[in-house]
Amino acid sequence: MSQKTSYGFLGLGIMGNGMVRCLLAGGLDVTVWNRTPAKCAPYVELGAKTASTAKEVIEKCDITFSCVSDPEAALQLVTMENGVLAGISAGKAYVDMSTVDGACAQEINTLITAKGGRYCEAPVSGSKGPAEQGTLLILAAGDEALASECQEAFDLMGKKSWFLGEVGQGARMKLVINTIMGVCLQGMSEGLAVGTKAGLDGETIIEVLSMGASGAPMFKLKGPKVLKDDYAVNFPLKHAQKDIRLGIALGDEMKQEMPAAAATNETFKKAIKEGNGDLDFSAIYKTLN
Amino acid sequence: MSQKTSYGFLGLGIMGNGMVRCLLAGGLDVTVWNRTPAKCAPYVELGAKTASTAKEVIEKCDITFSCVSDPEAALQLVTMENGVLAGISAGKAYVDMSTVDGACAQEINTLITAKGGRYCEAPVSGSKGPAEQGTLLILAAGDEALASECQEAFDLMGKKSWFLGEVGQGARMKLVINTIMGVCLQGMSEGLAVGTKAGLDGETIIEVLSMGASGAPMFKLKGPKVLKDDYAVNFPLKHAQKDIRLGIALGDEMKQEMPAAAATNETFKKAIKEGNGDLDFSAIYKTLN
Amino acid sequence: MSQKTSYGFLGLGIMGNGMVRCLLAGGLDVTVWNRTPAKCAPYVELGAKTASTAKEVIEKCDITFSCVSDPEAALQLVTMENGVLAGISAGKAYVDMSTVDGACAQEINTLITAKGGRYCEAPVSGSKGPAEQGTLLILAAGDEALASECQEAFDLMGKKSWFLGEVGQGARMKLVINTIMGVCLQGMSEGLAVGTKAGLDGETIIEVLSMGASGAPMFKLKGPKVLKDDYAVNFPLKHAQKDIRLGIALGDEMKQEMPAAAATNETFKKAIKEGNGDLDFSAIYKTLN
Amino acid sequence: MSQKTSYGFLGLGIMGNGMVRCLLAGGLDVTVWNRTPAKCAPYVELGAKTASTAKEVIEKCDITFSCVSDPEAALQLVTMENGVLAGISAGKAYVDMSTVDGACAQEINTLITAKGGRYCEAPVSGSKGPAEQGTLLILAAGDEALASECQEAFDLMGKKSWFLGEVGQGARMKLVINTIMGVCLQGMSEGLAVGTKAGLDGETIIEVLSMGASGAPMFKLKGPKVLKDDYAVNFPLKHAQKDIRLGIALGDEMKQEMPAAAATNETFKKAIKEGNGDLDFSAIYKTLN
Repeated sequence: MSQKTSYGFLGLGIMGNGMVRCLLAGGLDVTVWNRTPAKCAPYVELGAKTASTAKEVIEKCDITFSCVSDPEAALQLVTMENGVLAGISAGKAYVDMSTVDGACAQEINTLITAKGGRYCEAPVSGSKGPAEQGTLLILAAGDEALASECQEAFDLMGKKSWFLGEVGQGARMKLVINTIMGVCLQGMSEGLAVGTKAGLDGETIIEVLSMGASGAPMFKLKGPKVLKDDYAVNFPLKHAQKDIRLGIALGDEMKQEMPAAAATNETFKKAIKEGNGDLDFSAIYKTLN
Repeated sequence: MSQKTSYGFLGLGIMGNGMVRCLLAGGLDVTVWNRTPAKCAPYVELGAKTASTAKEVIEKCDITFSCVSDPEAALQLVTMENGVLAGISAGKAYVDMSTVDGACAQEINTLITAKGGRYCEAPVSGSKGPAEQGTLLILAAGDEALASECQEAFDLMGKKSWFLGEVGQGARMKLVINTIMGVCLQGMSEGLAVGTKAGLDGETIIEVLSMGASGAPMFKLKGPKVLKDDYAVNFPLKHAQKDIRLGIALGDEMKQEMPAAAATNETFKKAIKEGNGDLDFSAIYKTLN
Repeated sequence: MSQKTSYGFLGLGIMGNGMVRCLLAGGLDVTVWNRTPAKCAPYVELGAKTASTAKEVIEKCDITFSCVSDPEAALQLVTMENGVLAGISAGKAYVDMSTVDGACAQEINTLITAKGGRYCEAPVSGSKGPAEQGTLLILAAGDEALASECQEAFDLMGKKSWFLGEVGQGARMKLVINTIMGVCLQGMSEGLAVGTKAGLDGETIIEVLSMGASGAPMFKLKGPKVLKDDYAVNFPLKHAQKDIRLGIALGDEMKQEMPAAAATNETFKKAIKEGNGDLDFSAIYKTLN
Repeated sequence: MSQKTSYGFLGLGIMGNGMVRCLLAGGLDVTVWNRTPAKCAPYVELGAKTASTAKEVIEKCDITFSCVSDPEAALQLVTMENGVLAGISAGKAYVDMSTVDGACAQEINTLITAKGGRYCEAPVSGSKGPAEQGTLLILAAGDEALASECQEAFDLMGKKSWFLGEVGQGARMKLVINTIMGVCLQGMSEGLAVGTKAGLDGETIIEVLSMGASGAPMFKLKGPKVLKDDYAVNFPLKHAQKDIRLGIALGDEMKQEMPAAAATNETFKKAIKEGNGDLDFSAIYKTLN
């Protein structure tokens, strides 16, 4: 399929940059577009084609991916003049890899499919580094045949991809994963705070923790930094809190109690109240310590 | 030092079995003793010497390790007739690798050093598998010179060892690590419960989780089991709750709030109330789901 | 003012019944209307007038109160054919005493004032008994002059009324009060559960509690009932959970951590999961005990 | 019985002062003793007799009450030279109204009964004001016949007394009541913090709360003070935290989860960490707000 398929990619930000490079490095036929056209030049040097509008990308390509900053940008990309929707016709495929909520994914799905297009949401887990290295985790949902046709591209961008069912399940999986992540970070922070107060060396706690059964990669990454009050932002605390809050809201909907997530959420809220919402989410340590 | 040093080992249970095999495989001179003498035979075939009492092991060896089931057994091993204390004299070294609390470690320390002996506590993190494979994490504290002399033996039994300071800090490190572990398990359980209720596949949640930043080895190990209601005991829930409770008590002492650990502890208590205290600690999932 | 003012009342359910009787007993001029006209008869015997539509009530009266079951009913009462809005003209006053959320109150406010009408929300705290006895707590917000003109009527229906500011503050006050109530009930339930397990007599715990500094009337009312597994519904658990959830959501908005409310919410959710959502909110005791 | 019974009272501090005055005002025959003899003079003016040692009080009186500051003082009063125990003989009755823990009550019970004496613990709920007004809540446990013989005296000192069973149940009741009180105060504080941030007036929140179903007397008392940052100590925060911690420990023992109490405890710990342990327990508001 790869030789015949033509791919589009809309959005060349931090994430899109790495993803497109991976697709090009894999020898795929990629047409790129970005709101600021100048950003396209480096990809042309690597073999990419360009188009003057998002509409044109959709029209020229079999499958078009996008990755923009948030739900508002994702929706605007679809509905704006000369946007995605303008180019959609029967059989065209659109795969939105932005992080949006389930309702937004549903809305885009309705717009695309009403014009005969095919749609997948495919939010990713992982940030700048994994995007460049092609080691993202890809959480696809929606049109299963389409997800299957994306496999080659997904394999270039990610270390693994999953098809999770109907539109919305990709967003839900991301919430569940991020809620668990928040609780684990909270657990580390509480343990680090009490351990150092009890005279244990913080770096050593992280080292022992990292080598044992609960040794998540995040602990090795964040632990030494919080001990130095280094909260350079990777995942903003206020975004992490939003995900935990939505994870708990999913619990409300499912009538699933989530006591540790709830306790964690309250700490994150306190951290925002204390003015740390724009720091890295590991800055809950400041609030707890 | 290794050629000149003679080692003793008291206690040949699940943990001691693996640890002694590692010492013997490393070519060390080891004298073993067990309450049930017949248990010593397999180690003699592997090159171990034996002695008829714990006292005799202490007298014959430069450094004697022990690993028994709990604080009571650890204390009895020291104080019983023909026990450890009976053999201690100036310069003899005793390293207790059992999991005991700080108070018990202090008491044994006082008894040993009052007779001129040297003492380390060295509780381990890891269970049967790591004991056999020599990949335990060894949390030593007490006599620093002694811990240093144990390095060759520690390297055979563990993948890493740490010297943590005065007697009690080994036990405290273990509490901190196990409290964090409890919170992480709770986070996974809450996420798994809400995610599966929302229609996500449980195995997939574990898989995505395991490949991401919060992917602790424990999730891969426990997740698929709890989804099958398999709570075959590895670490009993009631022991895990005891550690979390003591971790929070350390927080009380240090005036460190630990809200997620506290929420976790209440779930563990509820699980015990529901009759699951003797199952694996992952059985909190039964209570939450 | 009372001799000149004519009052309307829409909705003669459990709450409206008591409230209208209090207004009539106070000698006010009241015109009633109910979806089921037959329900009006008893009030006519007590001196009330009737009208055939809500629109007609509004047109005939200076100030019209309403009290219906939920936000949907409240909104429908306003917008339906021959409803409230149809009767509104410059200077007409409408006071909605239903329990609605802030958004709904805002919407009704916009509709009424766009036609030149005046509007207050005035949700009440208290149930059937206080409605009949005229001892409700009235939480008014919106048009301050109107709230002031309602004083005589409020005094007949309630033991106290407050003017709380702009539309939405009445609903918010109710959320805050109900969230605190949920936490207090949770506290009582936890104490009762642990105390009785420790061999203390449940009735005695309630009695000691009730005579002390934290002796809320609710404890005396609910305590003895939960001890007999009597959860006859007064305030449905699922409604109480909704209020606590919205109270915490207000905390999210204000960046105010609410750890005990969050823990309480998780217990309420668990209770709903266990099938007790339609019982009285005191049925959290079943889940905790 | 009252004319024939002679009463002793040991300890004339803040609590004892009020209690003795109530006994004297009721016309009882009371012999007082205090570590500082000069403190006895005012009571002599009111009709009290005095003795030079605690031993002498026990010997002269049928029933001797005591109320001292803490478990250490309570135990010392019994075991010191010329103390309570020195005077105990068959049939002598001793009723300790100090706040002690169950273990201390048990120890005093063993000492007194071993010499043939009779013993009750009778901790009280209430502080200075109720002691002076004779409106304490008296939580008696131990020798039931003795508690019954104390009824006249209890009625003078308290508005109600209960007999709760074996020694230790008085202390346990106090823990349960104080744990519930802590959760209720936390609930009020969270509600007050979020409500005021949402623009509601704090005094009004307290007023509405106080007139409703969860209107505990404490809210009216503490609410307006915390709004003015007035934390003049009535019940020290660190003592309140100790009681909540012990209440949760009772939950551990009984395997009773107490999630809101646990969340509350963490807030109290944080308040102590922030240096507010010696303020009134209502100072958790500073930590939450």
